[in-house]
Amino acid sequence: MSLDTTATKPHERLAAWLAADMERVTDTIRARMSSEHAPRIPQVTAHLIEAGGKRLRPMLTLASARMMGYEGEDHVKLAATVEFIHTATLLHDDVVDESGQRRGRPTANLLWDNQSSVLVGDYLFARSFQLMVETGSLRVLDILSDAAATIAEGEVLQLTAARDLGTTEDTYLKVVRGKTAALFSAANEVGGVIAGASDAQVRALYAYGDALGIAFQIVDDLLDYGGVAAVMGKNTGDDFREGKLTLPVIKAIAAADADERAFWQRVIGEGRQGDGDLEQAQALLRKHGALDATRQEALDWIARAKAALATLPEHKLRGMLDDLADYVVARVL
Amino acid sequence: MSLDTTATKPHERLAAWLAADMERVTDTIRARMSSEHAPRIPQVTAHLIEAGGKRLRPMLTLASARMMGYEGEDHVKLAATVEFIHTATLLHDDVVDESGQRRGRPTANLLWDNQSSVLVGDYLFARSFQLMVETGSLRVLDILSDAAATIAEGEVLQLTAARDLGTTEDTYLKVVRGKTAALFSAANEVGGVIAGASDAQVRALYAYGDALGIAFQIVDDLLDYGGVAAVMGKNTGDDFREGKLTLPVIKAIAAADADERAFWQRVIGEGRQGDGDLEQAQALLRKHGALDATRQEALDWIARAKAALATLPEHKLRGMLDDLADYVVARVL
Repeated sequence: MSLDTTATKPHERLAAWLAADMERVTDTIRARMSSEHAPRIPQVTAHLIEAGGKRLRPMLTLASARMMGYEGEDHVKLAATVEFIHTATLLHDDVVDESGQRRGRPTANLLWDNQSSVLVGDYLFARSFQLMVETGSLRVLDILSDAAATIAEGEVLQLTAARDLGTTEDTYLKVVRGKTAALFSAANEVGGVIAGASDAQVRALYAYGDALGIAFQIVDDLLDYGGVAAVMGKNTGDDFREGKLTLPVIKAIAAADADERAFWQRVIGEGRQGDGDLEQAQALLRKHGALDATRQEALDWIARAKAALATLPEHKLRGMLDDLADYVVARVL
Repeated sequence: MSLDTTATKPHERLAAWLAADMERVTDTIRARMSSEHAPRIPQVTAHLIEAGGKRLRPMLTLASARMMGYEGEDHVKLAATVEFIHTATLLHDDVVDESGQRRGRPTANLLWDNQSSVLVGDYLFARSFQLMVETGSLRVLDILSDAAATIAEGEVLQLTAARDLGTTEDTYLKVVRGKTAALFSAANEVGGVIAGASDAQVRALYAYGDALGIAFQIVDDLLDYGGVAAVMGKNTGDDFREGKLTLPVIKAIAAADADERAFWQRVIGEGRQGDGDLEQAQALLRKHGALDATRQEALDWIARAKAALATLPEHKLRGMLDDLADYVVARVL
């Protein structure tokens, strides 16, 4: 493990500490995304994987395994598995959302076609299960197949809840668990499982990942309305335009009077939006304290993540994961 | 097991013999396609599953397990697994092919949307892995995750080979193994594996399913050009219009003179088709004996399927699977 002393952000410090492991994860990904017969598969996969996300999910698996004292080889396979599942869901999401951009580059469905995105996603999903099988751990397969089902269910729920003003905070939480937290928590859990951590430790790893993932998504949804200050940014308003019922909006609708309800019905329920509507939405969110209340929920989840982590043995990586939790909400402080 | 004496076709006799098991497969499918939170999932799944295909694939799993003397419960879970994987691929295929009809009914992507088809397919795929994990057999997981990868790879290969006049018979075979034979052979194999069949017996079950699936698809592709007689039917010409390089066309192109090659280049390579082009294609297939040669390949695969089956112990179900092999090619005799 190398130590990059210039790294200042928690995920950069994690990446520096896990650099040797992550290099092997990258090698595994490159080897397994190949296809003897269909070159389209590595082309599409490389487009996404080489674009360089933060690779938080595979790092969570590596960090959990190492933190619990793992010395074997399977954490690399599991980290690659987690990244493949994540990449497969991104490919399918871009088809579902009809997106044109991801990580600042044109999406695969735009560069190739929807067909390639659907089928290459399926291929990566199958490949991820092959990798899991190689670890020989049925418990790992159980955790990750449950996570895959929760992810797909959450995505369907998000699809059917769009534009539905009756969406509850409970439904929102299920969507968020599906689209984000399920893979965070599973990534952590399987790291602990292969390291032979105790049941209580595995539960703590799960709880950390679950709470971190939920907070992560709540912060994202808050920033989509410009954060607590409701300031316009370059990505402000995407959820608003797509009629997504995110936490700030759910809270504002719950507090709305008749006129405000009619506004939300028009802009979110029916999707009829004009100039000034986003600003009006932001004003209503501020008026009812929906932005502050949403931020407070993110902070509560982060507190839960840190509390779960604190039950685990002292370790350099534990400190980095603790910092990572703070960093996730730092964007909205 | 009940015996329906009016059943005359081999798959109907199989269905009658396996009726009690199949009923439990249906119950398992209904229970597992449910979703507490997202009712869209059972709606979409039921649309496809209740439409009533022949359910050949789950019957192959049940028949293989029973034929090898299996007395446990896991063959029902595995048959449901196989049907879920099949249903997931159909949902994704309809998005990929932009189909409007399947089994005589509007497709799910038309009734709901592409999004639902992609995400519900993902959900069923995850559910199928959960079911497999419950059997506790890593060998079963290995076989079916390999099959899932082969299926997706074959579909990508078909996508990239479309309109490519350089497509070889070897590539065609890989596509056919992916889109059809991989799940047939895996369905058989896992039935044998949970029954504790010997390695040689499992290989024979694989070989039967593989050859049956290949023959099944070759016959389908032959019928798309009206069979050996090249007679127009209601589904004639779908592959031609989509520019698919199926076996009859590959054989005719290999034997084409310069004028004929220019014809194939225009209608398949460039997709510029007009009145009379399908008839002209059929005439060229007949002229070069491509239809007869294709039929002969289907017959050869069926002979291989039957030879593999003959190495297995005598059983009532073995006779039905033997008849099933004959039945698959009877449509083109």
